[in-house]
Amino acid sequence: MGIQDFIESKNIRLDQQLRFTAEIDKMTSVYRRTMLIDGSRRENDAEHSWHIAVMTLLFKEYTVEPVNIERAVKMCIVHDLIEIYAGDTFAYDTTANKDKAEREAAAADKLFSHLPPEQGSEIRLLWEEFDEMKTPDSKYAACMDRLQPFLHNTLTEGHTWKEGNTNRAAVEKRMAIIKDFMPEVYKWIDQNLDLAIERGWLNP
Amino acid sequence: MGIQDFIESKNIRLDQQLRFTAEIDKMTSVYRRTMLIDGSRRENDAEHSWHIAVMTLLFKEYTVEPVNIERAVKMCIVHDLIEIYAGDTFAYDTTANKDKAEREAAAADKLFSHLPPEQGSEIRLLWEEFDEMKTPDSKYAACMDRLQPFLHNTLTEGHTWKEGNTNRAAVEKRMAIIKDFMPEVYKWIDQNLDLAIERGWLNP
Repeated sequence: MGIQDFIESKNIRLDQQLRFTAEIDKMTSVYRRTMLIDGSRRENDAEHSWHIAVMTLLFKEYTVEPVNIERAVKMCIVHDLIEIYAGDTFAYDTTANKDKAEREAAAADKLFSHLPPEQGSEIRLLWEEFDEMKTPDSKYAACMDRLQPFLHNTLTEGHTWKEGNTNRAAVEKRMAIIKDFMPEVYKWIDQNLDLAIERGWLNP
Repeated sequence: MGIQDFIESKNIRLDQQLRFTAEIDKMTSVYRRTMLIDGSRRENDAEHSWHIAVMTLLFKEYTVEPVNIERAVKMCIVHDLIEIYAGDTFAYDTTANKDKAEREAAAADKLFSHLPPEQGSEIRLLWEEFDEMKTPDSKYAACMDRLQPFLHNTLTEGHTWKEGNTNRAAVEKRMAIIKDFMPEVYKWIDQNLDLAIERGWLNP
């Protein structure tokens, strides 16, 4: 059972595209630190990527600069693909974040080589743009990538914060892009940070 | 733990959008008949929606009419949202498919009422367009929605076909949109159908 059962067509490009499609199903077994809102288990990268993609349809009215939703959606669905080979790096793990860029670039080389070159490049560029957070579209996608686990944390008694023995400054740093790019949304975050500390979910 | 922990902001629209975001996390517990390619468990609607959204970035060269990828991606990420309330209807279950439209319309009424009206309408229109399969973009999205579980089936020893005691005609009917809209891809499907029958995964 698995990719060894793949039947080749007479079209090499199509085979590359179908094999890549099969390969990325592995996103369903890359687990993140964040819990699902029902608290039943951790979420995986496929679920998270889908969730933030839908969110991009909802929150653009709060950005300080205009954004292209369609480009942000595409970034959201591909932004974690390289974790198939690089693994998920916990946002609040300072050691693991040191060699993150290097590990992820190597993973991208491997992953995108499965595709016809111009398609691999197109997706890689979207991922790199997301990662650099310089353009309005990538800033917006990055805000969704931060807002979603924040929402999950507030609804699961600060699960990830408690697990990481996290303090307010670390979360504020992670949420800085929202403070800059979506200040109205940040007000809600700030309010929740106060409460999370009050409830003992987060260190002051 | 859960939505009862939601802290309201001073912005009613933002609260609606955040609550909707939390509500749709339930897509992670709507399980489909299709197995993950590693055979470990069934896939859920969040994973499936993400997977076909990425696929739309890859296969547009095979369509018989030009398509707008960005619109197709958006349809893919929202096309199963109503299953949060309507449940997943197995494609090869003829009884359950009889009242599917009615159940899904009621589910849509409930789901989209959580959102500010114009946002609810926008997503509902995308879902309806997908469901009707009349425009090129929706035909393309529908092809991805059929191709993905087909690929999974070929890589999991025909899991869903065997479970449903399915025959070739039923799968051909389900794949008809691919035959019409993406004939080059259908050749690969046809070839796999021959093999699936030969291997006893599918009834002739």
